[in-house]
Amino acid sequence: MTKRTPSVRITLGDTGASTTRRPDTLAVEEPLEVRVGATPLNVTMRTPGDDFDLALGWLVTEGMIADAAQVAQLMHCLDEDENGSPTYNVVDVTLAPGARLDTSRAERATYTSSACGVCGKTSIDAISATSRYAVSTDTVRLSPEVLVGLPDALRARQEVFDRTGGLHAAGLFTASGEPLVVREDVGRHNAVDKVVGWAAREGRLPLKGHVLVVSGRASFELVQKAVMAGIPALVAVSAPSSLAVELAQSSGLTLVGFTRAPRMTVYAGAERVLTEEPVRG
Amino acid sequence: MTKRTPSVRITLGDTGASTTRRPDTLAVEEPLEVRVGATPLNVTMRTPGDDFDLALGWLVTEGMIADAAQVAQLMHCLDEDENGSPTYNVVDVTLAPGARLDTSRAERATYTSSACGVCGKTSIDAISATSRYAVSTDTVRLSPEVLVGLPDALRARQEVFDRTGGLHAAGLFTASGEPLVVREDVGRHNAVDKVVGWAAREGRLPLKGHVLVVSGRASFELVQKAVMAGIPALVAVSAPSSLAVELAQSSGLTLVGFTRAPRMTVYAGAERVLTEEPVRG
Repeated sequence: MTKRTPSVRITLGDTGASTTRRPDTLAVEEPLEVRVGATPLNVTMRTPGDDFDLALGWLVTEGMIADAAQVAQLMHCLDEDENGSPTYNVVDVTLAPGARLDTSRAERATYTSSACGVCGKTSIDAISATSRYAVSTDTVRLSPEVLVGLPDALRARQEVFDRTGGLHAAGLFTASGEPLVVREDVGRHNAVDKVVGWAAREGRLPLKGHVLVVSGRASFELVQKAVMAGIPALVAVSAPSSLAVELAQSSGLTLVGFTRAPRMTVYAGAERVLTEEPVRG
Repeated sequence: MTKRTPSVRITLGDTGASTTRRPDTLAVEEPLEVRVGATPLNVTMRTPGDDFDLALGWLVTEGMIADAAQVAQLMHCLDEDENGSPTYNVVDVTLAPGARLDTSRAERATYTSSACGVCGKTSIDAISATSRYAVSTDTVRLSPEVLVGLPDALRARQEVFDRTGGLHAAGLFTASGEPLVVREDVGRHNAVDKVVGWAAREGRLPLKGHVLVVSGRASFELVQKAVMAGIPALVAVSAPSSLAVELAQSSGLTLVGFTRAPRMTVYAGAERVLTEEPVRG
């Protein structure tokens, strides 16, 4: 997941710039293509590792499959680079007998798009996949003490970030704060897909009663991925976007942002968060 | 560019959690579809504002057009939302007479992909657009004193970040550190495209001798966008990825990361950075 590269460190001081050549550690970024049968569906720039989970999780969060039972086999396509060494940048997915990809989201997006309707509420419908799992009916209750500590718990499990400063992370926790899986990637959406793919492979979908924690901001895309996996709560270290909040509200997902102990801000689904004190204001 | 939303702020203390309901300011995220003629080419999740620059910059950094002279007209498609209000989420591009979109990159990517070759060096070729502008021959010289101060200069011009904490920024500077344009967006690639689109509209392409500054990390995609606009130097506040460094090295772009005064690290093209002291190590 990391690679060494030569670099020149420059430090400015009173007597000018001092320079030091030194090797530095980088987070690896490589393309991964996901195919189903012989059909290429997606290319994402990702950090290698857990590629099967990434492919599986991406198919789930795009709404194309319901769970891992619909997949018979995942394999790396054994392509070679210019030196004849094997690369692992294509994952080929073989569906289980009788399983079919649900491509209705892609079709609806195309249809809406050609009707000039990427706008407002319509756009959310068009770009949203229809989730198989309702998170609005999830009755889990979450304690503020647990929620506020999750980013630190995630951070403590980020092995590669400390060496590169270059990776996003996503982690899946139980409602009582137990960590189940943490994944790092140059792309935050990939980190989430790897987590969801892990859960799919473990037969844990839908992720009722669980909390997804992400290292950065909460975008529309991340809220959508949580909903698609049946996760009722998303905790982000930084700010959510307007569309992230709107989708969380309409889906019944609890969305927490700016989670930095001892504070956090709840943007949707606050009724799941237990507080003894009555809400003021 | 911002939107108000109700939120619940929770602060943990010795006596439990105190909660306050209050309005919070969010960065707006909405889809934008770019069409050329009647053909939809791309949907990106962006912060509204400077949509024409975004569309123009995207066409340039994808290698589809060379400059603004190839575009006759940019207009918002006047679609309506469910309440009959106009939305501005589709930009329709009309090419100038005789102009044609260069789609060779998309075609090459498809070809390579079906040949199972998204790997190693090949992948960089496949996913890279061929730049019309050589940055390797740019003879600009850059002073460490100027470079190290650019992230603060960018930050000082980020108007929306202060209110939302939710926006990336990109800025274009001269080699002497003069700011030309700063753009903010929920997507860092959009912020860069808005900057490049502004420059295209101003007839400034290729951006010889300029420096692009980005608020976060440097990915492959951002290096590629810089190269496509003929920008010889990219300064990032945080870490670059492995593929960002590889593309910078092979393109002859100066790539600076972890730029936090008084320090910065040069990953490629260090020969453009003037230091009085000979390099040690």
